Amino acid sequence: MLNLENATQRIRDILKSDDDKLIREELNNLHSADLAEIFDHLSSEERIKAFNYLTEECAADLLEELPAQFQVEILEEINEEKAARIILRMPHDSVADVLGDLTDSETEAYLNKLPARVSSQIRELLSYKEDTAGGIMNSEVITVEKDMTVEEALSYIRIKAETDKIDLYYVYVVDKFNHLCGVLSLRELITSPQYIKIEDIMITDIFKVNVDDDQEIVADTLMKYGFLAIPVVDHYGKLKGIVTWDDAQEISEEETTEEIYASSGISTDIIDEDEILSGHMFNAIRARLPWLFITLIGEFFAVNVAHHFDTTLHAIPIIAIFMPLLAGLGGNIGTQSITLMVRGLSTGQVNMSTAFHHIFRELRIGLFIGILFGLMVAVFTWNWQNSVVLGSVVGLAMAINMTLATVIGTVTPFILKKLKIDPAVASGPVIATTIDVLGLAVYFTLVTYSLHYLL
Amino acid sequence: MLNLENATQRIRDILKSDDDKLIREELNNLHSADLAEIFDHLSSEERIKAFNYLTEECAADLLEELPAQFQVEILEEINEEKAARIILRMPHDSVADVLGDLTDSETEAYLNKLPARVSSQIRELLSYKEDTAGGIMNSEVITVEKDMTVEEALSYIRIKAETDKIDLYYVYVVDKFNHLCGVLSLRELITSPQYIKIEDIMITDIFKVNVDDDQEIVADTLMKYGFLAIPVVDHYGKLKGIVTWDDAQEISEEETTEEIYASSGISTDIIDEDEILSGHMFNAIRARLPWLFITLIGEFFAVNVAHHFDTTLHAIPIIAIFMPLLAGLGGNIGTQSITLMVRGLSTGQVNMSTAFHHIFRELRIGLFIGILFGLMVAVFTWNWQNSVVLGSVVGLAMAINMTLATVIGTVTPFILKKLKIDPAVASGPVIATTIDVLGLAVYFTLVTYSLHYLL
Repeated sequence: MLNLENATQRIRDILKSDDDKLIREELNNLHSADLAEIFDHLSSEERIKAFNYLTEECAADLLEELPAQFQVEILEEINEEKAARIILRMPHDSVADVLGDLTDSETEAYLNKLPARVSSQIRELLSYKEDTAGGIMNSEVITVEKDMTVEEALSYIRIKAETDKIDLYYVYVVDKFNHLCGVLSLRELITSPQYIKIEDIMITDIFKVNVDDDQEIVADTLMKYGFLAIPVVDHYGKLKGIVTWDDAQEISEEETTEEIYASSGISTDIIDEDEILSGHMFNAIRARLPWLFITLIGEFFAVNVAHHFDTTLHAIPIIAIFMPLLAGLGGNIGTQSITLMVRGLSTGQVNMSTAFHHIFRELRIGLFIGILFGLMVAVFTWNWQNSVVLGSVVGLAMAINMTLATVIGTVTPFILKKLKIDPAVASGPVIATTIDVLGLAVYFTLVTYSLHYLL
Repeated sequence: MLNLENATQRIRDILKSDDDKLIREELNNLHSADLAEIFDHLSSEERIKAFNYLTEECAADLLEELPAQFQVEILEEINEEKAARIILRMPHDSVADVLGDLTDSETEAYLNKLPARVSSQIRELLSYKEDTAGGIMNSEVITVEKDMTVEEALSYIRIKAETDKIDLYYVYVVDKFNHLCGVLSLRELITSPQYIKIEDIMITDIFKVNVDDDQEIVADTLMKYGFLAIPVVDHYGKLKGIVTWDDAQEISEEETTEEIYASSGISTDIIDEDEILSGHMFNAIRARLPWLFITLIGEFFAVNVAHHFDTTLHAIPIIAIFMPLLAGLGGNIGTQSITLMVRGLSTGQVNMSTAFHHIFRELRIGLFIGILFGLMVAVFTWNWQNSVVLGSVVGLAMAINMTLATVIGTVTPFILKKLKIDPAVASGPVIATTIDVLGLAVYFTLVTYSLHYLL
């Protein structure tokens, strides 16, 4: 793979050289995926300059791979006629994505520059919601009619695939009214006898999705069954487009990001996931506040628990210094358990029917580690503070705390799942706060009961 | 998609019915991906029973999708002759995976039952390390020779693709000695004139990997460039196999799991990631102990900081009850920042060249939220404890704490990355412990300086 830093430096140097021929050659020889990574590291001026050296084909490939803000930045700077020619070389779903990020008047201006057939297809794509099958599908599909012979179908595809630059994963079979009737792999087509009718070899049990289906369902279906593409139909069963595996992969990466964000209490319900890192600062703040507030309320409970044992605290203030130790290790081991369960539920390695097995297993793990750490802390505290009783109290609190944390960390995701709440939601903050409250209660209770021996 | 619970219940009921015809029909009509999910929920006896009703083809498809422990369980229970016939229908890479999980003598027994050509290919696959390109590739590839014409190549592929059941993504071009010379998409092949020589239309700039390359590099290359498959060559440039996009997807899911585990302090360095949830309990404990020990040491520092302010604590024990509040919210907002940066670095949305931009942005976010929460906590404490000074001290500590946590959470991943350490490593525990130590130091210092007004 590409050494990104070296490659970026080289492109920077070449751009400075002003040797048109060299610049053109170097830039157009790079794979669009590499070029997109390099563009990430260039300055805004360098990006525009470099883009102008690309052939229309390379420019189209690159534009597809760039993040939305760069697409807008570049399209606003370059000549509109050229931009329209570049757009014409992109798959329609990518064009819809690009235009969707421009202002309405800019979008209109571009659409008016495109051939009527293309612009009407793109207008249709723009009419679907962004996160539905319709919003992510590509409307350019090669279809054959069911009463064609294999020979006719093959020669038809030959012509179509040569003129339009279309991804050819499967061949979809439709009737006269474009209703989806069947599907064929290219392999089946080329290995079948030439005279056979398409309808006699096509598969009619087709996995398909509806234009309005949520993009996550589409991606999950594609990934689960290992398809390269899945057809999208409207409510009348007419074929409207296909969603391909690379779109599904992008969506599943987004989903993973949302899951990871959620687990540390960053909410993607109101704010779009890619707005949080790069959008307006107040969007990022809004995404982070809800769970911080909930933590705040939870921690007020912890403060209250501690306050409840005010007398104990006044009698023997030294006990306060062990609070972070107990809360820290409880939070840590609890987070480990919750992470294992949440990820397991998400990949399918863990499911509701094995819940009790996992809870019991984590209980034993928590007990083992809890007792181990309890003993270490007890011995340390005993020696340090020269008090067997204090050592025992802190050690016992540690053991109970860690075991409790493991169990709560394991049980919580299953309960959330049962309540039909996404188990990933704020697992981190919730477990830390719960452990703070319960752990403190256990610790202070133990101290209070042994107060007689501690004074 | 399938309603898993209903489908599982239905299969359970049918299995109980002992209506052979019905069972056979229902089971063989399910897609192998669905069946694999259902098998996950069946008991061990139900699994064996159901498996015996499957046709050899369905059994092969299913076996490929099952987790290793089920594969072993089933193969040990069913008739060996039948097992060998099922294995023969699976892609070679899947067979190598299945046999790799059996004991050496069992593996030998199966290999001896397979045709010599197949068993020698599988022996070769078994000789590569599990996590290299050689260990994950499929050795069944359709190749054409470079001096064939398009017509010859097509008719050759027709015969090959029909007899062997091979995934046909690209057609690889080799010379007489099987050296990889070029690649062609099936689309190019069917749209080119029949009489043209393959070497005149093949692409010679081929992305390829070496048999010894790490599987993560292979997966990343495939994903980045959006290939359906990538060829694997040996040190002489001979074509040994291909790695396909579905393998890459599986590897990238494993990588994500490792990343998520690492971020909450579960180490996958010694213990394999899929051993942690389902393997021996002591493996799970070993994976979790290292970062718990590090947290323990870190928290001893926190205890020491608190102990350092012993006199303050004795003078005014009430201050101890705010410790969990400060640590909890600091840890929470710090984890948010570290999560955003670690995930951003992993997806490429964040990179080293934009480090200062992100640090500065998070600083402002931390300041804003810190001041907001500081004010809330100050007002609350003032009213509750009836002390303006205590309210101000706790509020100020909160504001400093949260800002500090955001900055540390943002800076840490960049420093780790610069030191060539994976930024995902134990981000959660590290940030929580650091905040415990620093946060307490800030808080107790503030309290000590205002002691005069607090008493």
